[in-house]
Amino acid sequence: MRIAREPAVAVVGGTGAVGEELLSLLESRAFPARSVRVFASARSAGRTLRALGRDVTVEPLAPGCFAGIDLAFFAASGAVSREWAPQAVASGAWVVDKSSAFRMDPACELVIPEANGERLDALHAPCIVAVPNCSTIIALVAVTPLHREAGVARMVVSTYQAASGAGAAAMAELERQAHDWSAGRPLDTRIFRRQYLFNLFSHDSAVGEDGQNEEERKLVDETRRIWRDPDVCVSATCVRVPVLRAHSESINLTFRTPLSEQRAREVLVAAPGLRIVDDRAGNRFPEPLEAAGRDEVLVGRIRADRSQPAGFGLSLFVSGDQIRKGAALNGIQIAERLLAR
Amino acid sequence: MRIAREPAVAVVGGTGAVGEELLSLLESRAFPARSVRVFASARSAGRTLRALGRDVTVEPLAPGCFAGIDLAFFAASGAVSREWAPQAVASGAWVVDKSSAFRMDPACELVIPEANGERLDALHAPCIVAVPNCSTIIALVAVTPLHREAGVARMVVSTYQAASGAGAAAMAELERQAHDWSAGRPLDTRIFRRQYLFNLFSHDSAVGEDGQNEEERKLVDETRRIWRDPDVCVSATCVRVPVLRAHSESINLTFRTPLSEQRAREVLVAAPGLRIVDDRAGNRFPEPLEAAGRDEVLVGRIRADRSQPAGFGLSLFVSGDQIRKGAALNGIQIAERLLAR
Repeated sequence: MRIAREPAVAVVGGTGAVGEELLSLLESRAFPARSVRVFASARSAGRTLRALGRDVTVEPLAPGCFAGIDLAFFAASGAVSREWAPQAVASGAWVVDKSSAFRMDPACELVIPEANGERLDALHAPCIVAVPNCSTIIALVAVTPLHREAGVARMVVSTYQAASGAGAAAMAELERQAHDWSAGRPLDTRIFRRQYLFNLFSHDSAVGEDGQNEEERKLVDETRRIWRDPDVCVSATCVRVPVLRAHSESINLTFRTPLSEQRAREVLVAAPGLRIVDDRAGNRFPEPLEAAGRDEVLVGRIRADRSQPAGFGLSLFVSGDQIRKGAALNGIQIAERLLAR
Repeated sequence: MRIAREPAVAVVGGTGAVGEELLSLLESRAFPARSVRVFASARSAGRTLRALGRDVTVEPLAPGCFAGIDLAFFAASGAVSREWAPQAVASGAWVVDKSSAFRMDPACELVIPEANGERLDALHAPCIVAVPNCSTIIALVAVTPLHREAGVARMVVSTYQAASGAGAAAMAELERQAHDWSAGRPLDTRIFRRQYLFNLFSHDSAVGEDGQNEEERKLVDETRRIWRDPDVCVSATCVRVPVLRAHSESINLTFRTPLSEQRAREVLVAAPGLRIVDDRAGNRFPEPLEAAGRDEVLVGRIRADRSQPAGFGLSLFVSGDQIRKGAALNGIQIAERLLAR
């Protein structure tokens, strides 16, 4: 069963940071939606917003609300997806879910189109396709082509994550802190419980008994799942920095077979979804402000790692828009590939 | 020849960020200076400042200016140190130099008191002792005790470096950008040539043909020198983040012999110059704002790295005041150890 060529679309969580980006990208990409409905929490229901050139009234989720929907984007919490995404599928909709609810569910696919888009081609009935965690997407758009070429045995990642990963209110808190700091007022710290401006801190997700936080665990587990390689070793340290909406990541790789720096560069230049920013003479490399608002993940600092046997180590640095490629755009690309089959 | 018990002290570069911190720390630590003279560029000469409870007039450097000085702290550029530090030694002063000029000079010692302070005990004539680069100091205060315990074979470091490493004017530029951003004015980007607020960028030092920048090369070379271990492998990625005065570093270690997470923690608890901030339940770990103004390097996120064979891998995260332990304090600790012999 194929998805309708001009699907009736629903966006769940359409008033959040990712939901707004989704609606904006659906329009700018001329996504062939026959119609669009926007769902959000009861708090936002009743609002009117522009979606695909139409005025749309935000609706609350309710039993039967997905009747007639061909394609539902979920851009809300894991709890909302767990409750409502199966209902959307039951009523005949394909679901693209940006939450973490179904990422590790063996009955669902976990897809970055540039990395494992072929997983979508085998699907033949409405189901849930999960969008990976933003840090995973941004790392793997760059690293998967190298993995295909030389096999990544181990990946050590340190992240520089933006406020946006914690939602629109978190971005607003960082901005408000800058205003308050400048005015000499006390800083509002209600979301992050600390001064975030001019500071950084370990990712605000729960830390397990092994000392890994949830964000780090996602990077490990999702990489293995997307590459279908349970042996790949990933070591992650996830850190929140005072940046608004693009994540950066310092990535150190160990390959199974040797890969020269030059060949790695050729592979990255030819890979989809990447933009090379690697000007050593001018000292210009990926920066989150330059990645913000772009579809591509920026990649640079591409260099052989001389701390490993020749050819077996490579370092790089990436920046990617957390809301766009890290969530909304990746979801739309999944839908576009489903439609293109 | 021992250093005088109550030395006549000179501070070169006394009006810069590190120089000011040096003068303040000499006072708060009741450093037993018989007298203090402050030297700076011609631009600052003639100014009066407080030093060790006295009003001191800033002097320009001039031939013969070190006559009678027992101990000279150099807190200026490498060029100033290269020209003037040998003259200070020639006139009988011990020199503690925070610049990079003599760090790799085999005739000089490169010392972090907590890591290799014993190198000072064998010195018997006035000479230049170099203070390592700030990133090296902050990493090695934490990692050296582990290295002594289990032998570090490889260290992968990603840094989160503050504005202060580029000097007081750079800190002021970051603060000014926050004010200007808040007021809706264009941002002043004269030092870093880009928006720094809400952004980050690869360290602003020259990038060599191998793709490493100077800051990264220092971490590699200085670690080998301080540990007297030319075989240790270090892979560094140095990044400037919008933080004012403390550097943070994400560090991943590979040991030569196994070291349990519990034993690593015991070693770090017992090590000098460290403060453990590792509250997994409360999600409190080292943060640069908390490290600022402290003598100790904060260390946390201490966890076995399961991407390596059991016992051979460990990850941790450190934050340390770049101006204090990363420069001024380390220099004073060198002098204190010279005096205590």
